[in-house]
Amino acid sequence: MSIEISERMQNLKPSAIREMLKVTADPSVISFSAGNPSAELFPVEKLAEITASIYAREAATALQYSITEGYGPLRELTKQRYRKYGIGTDEDDLIICSGGQQGIDLAVKCLVNEGDTIICENPSFIGALNTFRSYNAKLVGIPMDRDGMDISALEDALRREKNVRLIYTIPTFQNPAGVTMCMERRKKLLELAEKYDVIILEDSPYFELSFSGEIIKPIKTLDTSGHVVYLGSFSKIIAPGIRIGFVCGPKWLVSKMTVAKQIADVHTNMVFMMVVAKMLESYDMDAHIAKCRDLYSRKCALMLGEMDKLFDKRVSYTKPEGGLFLWCDLPEGYPSLPMCALAQKRKVAVVPGMTFDVNESTENRGFRLNFSVPTPEQIKTGIGRVAQSITDYLKPEN
Amino acid sequence: MSIEISERMQNLKPSAIREMLKVTADPSVISFSAGNPSAELFPVEKLAEITASIYAREAATALQYSITEGYGPLRELTKQRYRKYGIGTDEDDLIICSGGQQGIDLAVKCLVNEGDTIICENPSFIGALNTFRSYNAKLVGIPMDRDGMDISALEDALRREKNVRLIYTIPTFQNPAGVTMCMERRKKLLELAEKYDVIILEDSPYFELSFSGEIIKPIKTLDTSGHVVYLGSFSKIIAPGIRIGFVCGPKWLVSKMTVAKQIADVHTNMVFMMVVAKMLESYDMDAHIAKCRDLYSRKCALMLGEMDKLFDKRVSYTKPEGGLFLWCDLPEGYPSLPMCALAQKRKVAVVPGMTFDVNESTENRGFRLNFSVPTPEQIKTGIGRVAQSITDYLKPEN
Repeated sequence: MSIEISERMQNLKPSAIREMLKVTADPSVISFSAGNPSAELFPVEKLAEITASIYAREAATALQYSITEGYGPLRELTKQRYRKYGIGTDEDDLIICSGGQQGIDLAVKCLVNEGDTIICENPSFIGALNTFRSYNAKLVGIPMDRDGMDISALEDALRREKNVRLIYTIPTFQNPAGVTMCMERRKKLLELAEKYDVIILEDSPYFELSFSGEIIKPIKTLDTSGHVVYLGSFSKIIAPGIRIGFVCGPKWLVSKMTVAKQIADVHTNMVFMMVVAKMLESYDMDAHIAKCRDLYSRKCALMLGEMDKLFDKRVSYTKPEGGLFLWCDLPEGYPSLPMCALAQKRKVAVVPGMTFDVNESTENRGFRLNFSVPTPEQIKTGIGRVAQSITDYLKPEN
Repeated sequence: MSIEISERMQNLKPSAIREMLKVTADPSVISFSAGNPSAELFPVEKLAEITASIYAREAATALQYSITEGYGPLRELTKQRYRKYGIGTDEDDLIICSGGQQGIDLAVKCLVNEGDTIICENPSFIGALNTFRSYNAKLVGIPMDRDGMDISALEDALRREKNVRLIYTIPTFQNPAGVTMCMERRKKLLELAEKYDVIILEDSPYFELSFSGEIIKPIKTLDTSGHVVYLGSFSKIIAPGIRIGFVCGPKWLVSKMTVAKQIADVHTNMVFMMVVAKMLESYDMDAHIAKCRDLYSRKCALMLGEMDKLFDKRVSYTKPEGGLFLWCDLPEGYPSLPMCALAQKRKVAVVPGMTFDVNESTENRGFRLNFSVPTPEQIKTGIGRVAQSITDYLKPEN
């Protein structure tokens, strides 16, 4: 047999993190590698009650084929909820998709030809990077500092690169870096997108998980020219297993993304589109989100405190103001891969920066830590093990 | 703004049928246009009971992220169920996907480069055709007769066309034609796939809905050389709104399709993967399917009886032995589009053959009728209206 995999998929590997999920099934391993929300926060009782009422009253609708755009009341309630933040105008439309990941796929499918360029933060979300690779796009990574994407490096790239079709960004509590783009840069980013006529794909699954409760305005709220496609998700504020997200963007583009969705999966799971609609209608989502924020804020503070105590002082790390992740950098000359391997021997899983590196560089000195999943005890024990692995790896200071 | 839709998506339109769903929302319209199973068959009570027990006992698993391959017990139970029919070997693997439609998308993404050729029956399933178009594949349609694909036309195409990467077929109770490929042709088709080293994508959502109860062996059951990728679905035997299907094929290919799925939607709705697993475990699926078969068989017979009585004798139609659809052809010189428009005025929706035509020919003389959704009364009234529309359209015989 001489059948070959298509060119676009030939070199694409499974996400190292999702593969790691299989390793961390070992219960003696402490995992800081997931991107999961904390299961203790799932509003199980309410979901169960709503699901039962849907079976009782609207089963035929819930179990039958639906339109591709998604369940009407869910679209309407989602629009209403996010309009309050300033997301979406009358020129925009909103459709439901099967998690935020599908929104990335649909946007790329509709906007990017093979060989076109996509600009993104470096490091960035591996699920997005692999989607870009699967369309044979050229990836250009822009470095970040504590205030997000380096805007002058972005402008250089926009000036230099041909056929830039997308700027992908996770501006708030970025995955993996845990940093947030400041408002000045958000404005500047939008100006550049308008100047170079490029769509911004704003991936925003975490912005409501702000530790202080203060919401940093998404870039979409500044968009008056229709240059921003906003991706939202219920994964981190309800539950990820149900795979419900949404896309809000210019009508001409969202209608084409709907065609792309039709041939991807026809429509999203109908029962759970109805469940989420009823959640938005009858559950105090803001109180629930406040609970999530509170728990993650405490876990993050605990993790940072342990790191301050135990990590070699040459290691630097971000201090996130929300979300699920923080990012550490080993000192110059120390790629993180060998340290992550040492940590794995000590039964603690952390994700090497190379995984999120646009260029997949083995020289990457970073690693990502998740604080939403582990218990306080696991955070204490696990950070001790990571600290020990770092000590084993770094040569003593002169 | 000068932002353009990607080349692959530029000319792709929404499925005419799914657009029609919006029209047939008018309750005075009788719809023969859907591809839906009958809602009265949904096993609502059992699904509700199982879902409640999952919330009660395994909520954290059901609501959390899962692995891309799908929920382990569902994969195992699905393998077991379809092994009984002879589907799948030790060389194969099986993953869960978000409906059969996603299986089509993943197979094409992993096997077909832009410009490569896909061979399929003509007419064929619009959802598949649009997926093929969205990858800029060249489509070659093979005519069918009452025994399925014309095998010598297929061999001509395989000899003539360059870079044929897939043969797409719905061999049993084909959508839209309602015909079934005979066993001899199934064997010949597989031989040709082996000779020309091309993957057969066998789309088989209907095969268990055989009116007689006799199961026609899928092509996959004959496959010893790993040339068949089998797509199955729970849409027509449980419910479509839950979007659960599966792919069974050679391991090297299914593992790549898993990577493609990871960047499409991470994984399928976890709650319903668990629900379907429990259905396979604790529900008498075969008794349920027998009930479906019985209802559809009666509806199909009723529709054919009315057609025999009322249709102009120059109209020919298939006599399906299962599934959801039958197909009618107007006589030479009568494209079906104007007749379908007349029918719509009489408040009955039928789908013109052009929709399923590989070449989207407006000269297509066929139209598709669905018999699973309408009630017996609607079938009688609706077929009367179609018959009248045909009479209005055809010139009287000399």
